[in-house]
Amino acid sequence: MTQKYPSLFFDNAVNEFAKLPGIGRKSALRLALQTLKRTKEEVSVFCQAISDLCNHVRYCKICHNICDSEICDICSDTHRDTSLVCVVESIKEVMAIENTGQYQGLYHVLGGIISPMEGIGPGDLQIESLIRRVKQGDVKEIILALSTTMEGDTTNFYIYRKLTGVNVGISVIARGVSIGDEIEYADEITLGRSILNRVNFSDSFK
Amino acid sequence: MTQKYPSLFFDNAVNEFAKLPGIGRKSALRLALQTLKRTKEEVSVFCQAISDLCNHVRYCKICHNICDSEICDICSDTHRDTSLVCVVESIKEVMAIENTGQYQGLYHVLGGIISPMEGIGPGDLQIESLIRRVKQGDVKEIILALSTTMEGDTTNFYIYRKLTGVNVGISVIARGVSIGDEIEYADEITLGRSILNRVNFSDSFK
Repeated sequence: MTQKYPSLFFDNAVNEFAKLPGIGRKSALRLALQTLKRTKEEVSVFCQAISDLCNHVRYCKICHNICDSEICDICSDTHRDTSLVCVVESIKEVMAIENTGQYQGLYHVLGGIISPMEGIGPGDLQIESLIRRVKQGDVKEIILALSTTMEGDTTNFYIYRKLTGVNVGISVIARGVSIGDEIEYADEITLGRSILNRVNFSDSFK
Repeated sequence: MTQKYPSLFFDNAVNEFAKLPGIGRKSALRLALQTLKRTKEEVSVFCQAISDLCNHVRYCKICHNICDSEICDICSDTHRDTSLVCVVESIKEVMAIENTGQYQGLYHVLGGIISPMEGIGPGDLQIESLIRRVKQGDVKEIILALSTTMEGDTTNFYIYRKLTGVNVGISVIARGVSIGDEIEYADEITLGRSILNRVNFSDSFK
């Protein structure tokens, strides 16, 4: 149901806000009303920022992370371990892993995962460039850090197959019971995996 | 905590999205990521709509509702009862009352209610213009439809005092148990009010 507002400009703005993900028509109305209360300068700054985002953000030529130059800060950081590449779905995962402070290698952002249901095939993702990057020889190990869904597993397997015969280590991030979680409430698959992939006790507190 | 993203443009966009009401930093990040996935045309249409909202929406000279011309569609509708003016806080209430289809009079949008806590005094609202409008003589009755909060009551009383000696009927919208609500679950104040303000049974199904 598209409600009609007393102003065409207002109506347009509500419709545009409602196109944003997770914003329904009620929220869009609230956003439009609040925008009306802001000064022209504030709104102009807002519009400029969104427009700049669309026109000026670039993608790193090496890892496809977002950046403002040709090569992102992570790839151009000489202190990082260039022999290690963590393969992730999107820049959100890069941010999450960077926030842990536990990883000093590089990344490779696929831009999605293989999903026949959504019509996303290997050709739509940055898989070819990953294979090329690995074949250049500098990379010693790639860490697959995709979601444990059927799509994630398919993508992992596709990359694994593409790299057969290439001299590179392929690992996946550890799956197990979350730190702080009660064992009795962990789901069977996670708990089963955490037993199969148990680690040496003396390694666990390194 | 302001997280730093790998691109300054991206960072700016997230910050601007986070300034919208009800949008936290996580949602702002999601909105910025989704904006990156949209085409330049879509984003440009979005920015244009927001900018137009700010620059081209006007307020009706009579009732202060939003509109695209000098006088809004409601005030310029010759079929409506110009002797009846419903006083509301914002254009949201105009929309809500219009949606009922039960009201054929005009409106007066105050643009807020008196709230000393938020520093909103009578001078910040369209109260003077309401008094002037009523004193011009065409209005026979004003219906106060503000929230039943202390601020709403204060505003009602302020308007009532300002109109002492002016030949105009002043009414407030009926408060009572909502249609469809169980009597036993209604709060005491509402239930008490609904007994005090009981209406003639034969009037109740008109």
